[in-house]
Amino acid sequence: MLDNTLSNQYAGKNVLITGGMGFIGSNLAIRLSKEGAKVTILDSLLANFGGNIFNIKPIESIVKINISDMRDIPSLQILVQNQDYIFHLAGQVSHGDSMRDPEQDLAVNCVSTINLVEACRQFNPNARLVYTSTRQVYGVPKTLPVTEEHAALPVDVNGINKLAAEYYHLLYDRTYGLRSVVLRLTNTYGPRQQIRNNRQGFIGIFFRQALRNEIIKIFGTGNQLRDFNYVDDVVEAILLSAITENCYGKIFNLGAPQNYSLLQFLDIFKDIFNINYEIIPFPEDKKIIDIGDYYGDYSRFTEMTGWQTKIDLAEGIEKTINFYKKHQQEYWA
Amino acid sequence: MLDNTLSNQYAGKNVLITGGMGFIGSNLAIRLSKEGAKVTILDSLLANFGGNIFNIKPIESIVKINISDMRDIPSLQILVQNQDYIFHLAGQVSHGDSMRDPEQDLAVNCVSTINLVEACRQFNPNARLVYTSTRQVYGVPKTLPVTEEHAALPVDVNGINKLAAEYYHLLYDRTYGLRSVVLRLTNTYGPRQQIRNNRQGFIGIFFRQALRNEIIKIFGTGNQLRDFNYVDDVVEAILLSAITENCYGKIFNLGAPQNYSLLQFLDIFKDIFNINYEIIPFPEDKKIIDIGDYYGDYSRFTEMTGWQTKIDLAEGIEKTINFYKKHQQEYWA
Repeated sequence: MLDNTLSNQYAGKNVLITGGMGFIGSNLAIRLSKEGAKVTILDSLLANFGGNIFNIKPIESIVKINISDMRDIPSLQILVQNQDYIFHLAGQVSHGDSMRDPEQDLAVNCVSTINLVEACRQFNPNARLVYTSTRQVYGVPKTLPVTEEHAALPVDVNGINKLAAEYYHLLYDRTYGLRSVVLRLTNTYGPRQQIRNNRQGFIGIFFRQALRNEIIKIFGTGNQLRDFNYVDDVVEAILLSAITENCYGKIFNLGAPQNYSLLQFLDIFKDIFNINYEIIPFPEDKKIIDIGDYYGDYSRFTEMTGWQTKIDLAEGIEKTINFYKKHQQEYWA
Repeated sequence: MLDNTLSNQYAGKNVLITGGMGFIGSNLAIRLSKEGAKVTILDSLLANFGGNIFNIKPIESIVKINISDMRDIPSLQILVQNQDYIFHLAGQVSHGDSMRDPEQDLAVNCVSTINLVEACRQFNPNARLVYTSTRQVYGVPKTLPVTEEHAALPVDVNGINKLAAEYYHLLYDRTYGLRSVVLRLTNTYGPRQQIRNNRQGFIGIFFRQALRNEIIKIFGTGNQLRDFNYVDDVVEAILLSAITENCYGKIFNLGAPQNYSLLQFLDIFKDIFNINYEIIPFPEDKKIIDIGDYYGDYSRFTEMTGWQTKIDLAEGIEKTINFYKKHQQEYWA
């Protein structure tokens, strides 16, 4: 039913995806190509950021690919022109890296975003923008589930910079009529995530450790609660948000109908794939940016768009593991 | 009594003032020199930002002056060393400029701040920092007076970037024990403000227009409410915040015991100095970043530090106008 909602809405549309060779960006590009959109992918392919030419192999011949950095303003000013939709997924996502190199995180997440909204204001004020932010902006939850009204008190530099990037989008929406919607993603997993290094969160690390028959390491107690979204569900949410007029100018959580502790997550994983795990104390650098339990209230977004997740955790893990088993060389060898 | 609180607390202390040749920074530098502190002034003296060598004329021979940009990380890493207190006042304050050149506002307000807290973390983790933020982070007040719990929804790029800079300070306080306090200043006025161009807010413009016998222009109705702080009171607040252990890690509003409409402000002005004014409609670029009425609740700060304003509006305006009359060439010729 939800697929029907989308049907033909993107056919023939010009879309730009920043970070389009990254994890979520590439899945979005593939889906949009299937929907008949004319896709331009913008990616800097900076080392270790998750962009990977293999990610868009299935659509390589039918999309436009533009390798450039969003700090390159003139190129951005060209690329935004004539786009009906702009999906802004480029960015640094590693919390640890943001603490080790805060200047870079600021450059990649904030400078790029200002450049994008400015380029749109000047060269394509009718574009519609979707910005994928993160639950990390909330910091340590004071109440659960976390709603969009929960105060933002980020526990790392990445959370601060993503929050500022949200504000730029909303400011340009309010001030210049540049329609923008902000989605706060929670733990997203699935095919095409960079899992070779530790920069894209613990799920990717779990998958790599599982595939390499290593012992999966859980920090703390393993009882930390999380909500998990399979990447196809997130792609669907992004597409729905962009075609729902009432979403513009607003912030929405994504989330899942059920939350799991990390141990529960691994129990489900164990039913699908042979894994071993151990629980170890938090390393100091991880502890200071840990947020404890988190799960989000996404009812506002569902009311607005009808979005529901379709892939449960067991199915999602199975799809993911099958993908990575097939593509060892490209992702985790 | 409050002066007693301060007495000798800064004598012999090493202090660094970023933006120390600017409006508030130079007044702070002069006061700290009187208190017997060893003052180092860091200022980029970027054109139009308000830094002015004349501002520190009275103390030129007894302070260290370092002309450099805070984007120059190695120089900053030297300058923060061995400082007992660091007062971070450097920044761009023009709301209009932040909309015209958002990248520059980001560089000056956010990149500089990240560089500062990083330099302190690495080279002076025992320093105590005071960051002067702005009421602009609140955006349009939903309730009055505005308390620190009021949601932040900035209406301009400057507000977003100052908010991010606040977050960096609080994050480094929480995460690395780098003690930082954030003060949200409201309309500050007094000697040493840059009033030659329109970049430092409407009060400076009013003073210039008055001194030049021009007609003062008020946008809107003139009924907009504001709270006004004379710069000496703000300097006192800054100094109190830095020596009050319980202030660290927190955000405080400054404010005034009474609020005034712009027309009331001008009526008081008129009793002191011969002025003429007219009310004109908001120019479009000003209207989109106007916040309507604002006055802040600063009781939390008073409870913590005992701070009270000492200079009322009539006295403050008189002192200010006398200063500028004496220094026409340097400020408004």
